[in-house]
Amino acid sequence: MPTNRQILLDNRPQGEATVSNFKLVSVQTPDLQDGQVLVRHHYLSLDPYMRGRMNESKSYAAPQPLGEVMIGGTVGEVVESRHPKFQPGDRVVGMGGWQEYSVVNGNEPGALRKVDTTHVPLSYYLGAVGMPGVTAWYGLVKIIAPKAGETVVVSAATGAVGSALAALAKARGCRVVGIAGGAEKCAYAVNELGFDACIDYKQHTTLAAMSKAVKEACPNGVDGLFENVGGLVMDAVMLRMNAFSRIAVCGMIAGYDGAPLAMANPALILVNRMKIQGFIVSEHPEVWGEALNELGTLVAQGKLHPRETVAQGLEAAPEAFLGLLKGKNFGKQLVKLI
Amino acid sequence: MPTNRQILLDNRPQGEATVSNFKLVSVQTPDLQDGQVLVRHHYLSLDPYMRGRMNESKSYAAPQPLGEVMIGGTVGEVVESRHPKFQPGDRVVGMGGWQEYSVVNGNEPGALRKVDTTHVPLSYYLGAVGMPGVTAWYGLVKIIAPKAGETVVVSAATGAVGSALAALAKARGCRVVGIAGGAEKCAYAVNELGFDACIDYKQHTTLAAMSKAVKEACPNGVDGLFENVGGLVMDAVMLRMNAFSRIAVCGMIAGYDGAPLAMANPALILVNRMKIQGFIVSEHPEVWGEALNELGTLVAQGKLHPRETVAQGLEAAPEAFLGLLKGKNFGKQLVKLI
Repeated sequence: MPTNRQILLDNRPQGEATVSNFKLVSVQTPDLQDGQVLVRHHYLSLDPYMRGRMNESKSYAAPQPLGEVMIGGTVGEVVESRHPKFQPGDRVVGMGGWQEYSVVNGNEPGALRKVDTTHVPLSYYLGAVGMPGVTAWYGLVKIIAPKAGETVVVSAATGAVGSALAALAKARGCRVVGIAGGAEKCAYAVNELGFDACIDYKQHTTLAAMSKAVKEACPNGVDGLFENVGGLVMDAVMLRMNAFSRIAVCGMIAGYDGAPLAMANPALILVNRMKIQGFIVSEHPEVWGEALNELGTLVAQGKLHPRETVAQGLEAAPEAFLGLLKGKNFGKQLVKLI
Repeated sequence: MPTNRQILLDNRPQGEATVSNFKLVSVQTPDLQDGQVLVRHHYLSLDPYMRGRMNESKSYAAPQPLGEVMIGGTVGEVVESRHPKFQPGDRVVGMGGWQEYSVVNGNEPGALRKVDTTHVPLSYYLGAVGMPGVTAWYGLVKIIAPKAGETVVVSAATGAVGSALAALAKARGCRVVGIAGGAEKCAYAVNELGFDACIDYKQHTTLAAMSKAVKEACPNGVDGLFENVGGLVMDAVMLRMNAFSRIAVCGMIAGYDGAPLAMANPALILVNRMKIQGFIVSEHPEVWGEALNELGTLVAQGKLHPRETVAQGLEAAPEAFLGLLKGKNFGKQLVKLI
């Protein structure tokens, strides 16, 4: 059996996460038992939710155990199988974790899913046609539920979720405004991802300045906000939200490293009769089929062509992950493992 | 025609509202024109929303104009009518304002509604079987939507909204926990209004202490919060809310007088996949019939017998209103005008 390199969570962050929280080890992959499948990972997905799992505190999911392989989504190919539904060469998506190989129980529902790479590149199943894409779909379709002509804002616009959100919202006739860090990302959002406008939050460091920028980009106010960040950006958008507007809360990345960030003016929830709802996409398996179908179609039609930032080799994962938390990636952050 | 005393908004509050913001005047009631009805008010309702109208700032409703009669709900009797649907002696509910008489256009939809006082005292149509009662009904039934066995918390428990909410939630098999100011109010909530427990917020002045009190009163956590106050109390309850819990935001009284109060930890919205929704009951006329029917039945069955605090005479209205804003009333605050 091949040697498998793994990255474990070695210790929990004190404040900011660092590379010293992780540990690289090598192990032999075990012999397969009946019903098991050996998958060689081609790509590992890096996502902000992983930072939350590194803490011990109460969250929606159990913390990542110390000394175990970091959790993470993977795509790859079956290299050996003792399960009748999987054959060597099959392309599969799973939660293989931060390692080069994984042994999967083929009978566990949802643990391993075969995918078709005829029209959709394999790596997209970790992004636009995977969990981030379905995340955008759920927040937009099930919580924001926009009408044609409404304005939808998304923070972290050029990430995997934001890219998918833009395509999905444009398909529904919305004005879509992104928020991203830096002129390059903003230009990309407008020129490549189909955003109607994009606000560079690095140019607007106060609540008043950010709120003014939102007003200029959203002349009819904001009807829906897909929130990935929290803090000042969210406060500024809230000041421009219309009556009966909706916020889908998908992430609060700015608060992960330290004390919780406050919401400056919750009275706006009442004044504007807003709805704010948090969600975790993995809790809504009933929408995945419909969502992935629409997302795959948008990719095949060329209406959704997300950017990827690809780090090379498992050993590059910790640095790439810390960069993701600081917004250094551009589009979906992946680690190529072959 | 009789003399009519009125209270006008004379000037806007600078910070806290004071009696000097109001002005008492006397005018003659005008002769009726075709379609008009003259109503003598028996009771004027005082409600927290009036404080918001005194400001000039953007809110969900237009500000109260200076120099005009303060807005307010009233019950009374028809004393003269030039409209075929209304006869002298009819008991009616309307938005007559802070004055002893009002002239109402009988053709305006919803402006004047005849009520039956056989089983429900006239004043209750301003409280439990009126706007506050429907407010409790909408937030509980349409936003919190509790299942039997769930725990629902309401701040301002002994007010008109809180009283109705307790009866409505008990009728749905919930554990109902109130929050009120002082031992007397808390005892009343439990002994008379049917609350399972009531927390005296004056005994718990820090977030940690209040949160501990909520934990003790809600051993299974909190599934629904009907929020009338905001600030520290809301922050403390949020720390005890369960996955998929709901907050109906009806009031943020603590923020009316000054800077907006922050929400300490909005990341809980994501962690617990919460839904928070603000609402204004007057925007949901479609529920009033069903809600008033249930509330009137609960009163007739003796399951809802709210307390009233009654000030005597129009001239007492400003002081009574300022007392309401400070929580000095006990139950529904009314002004008796006859």
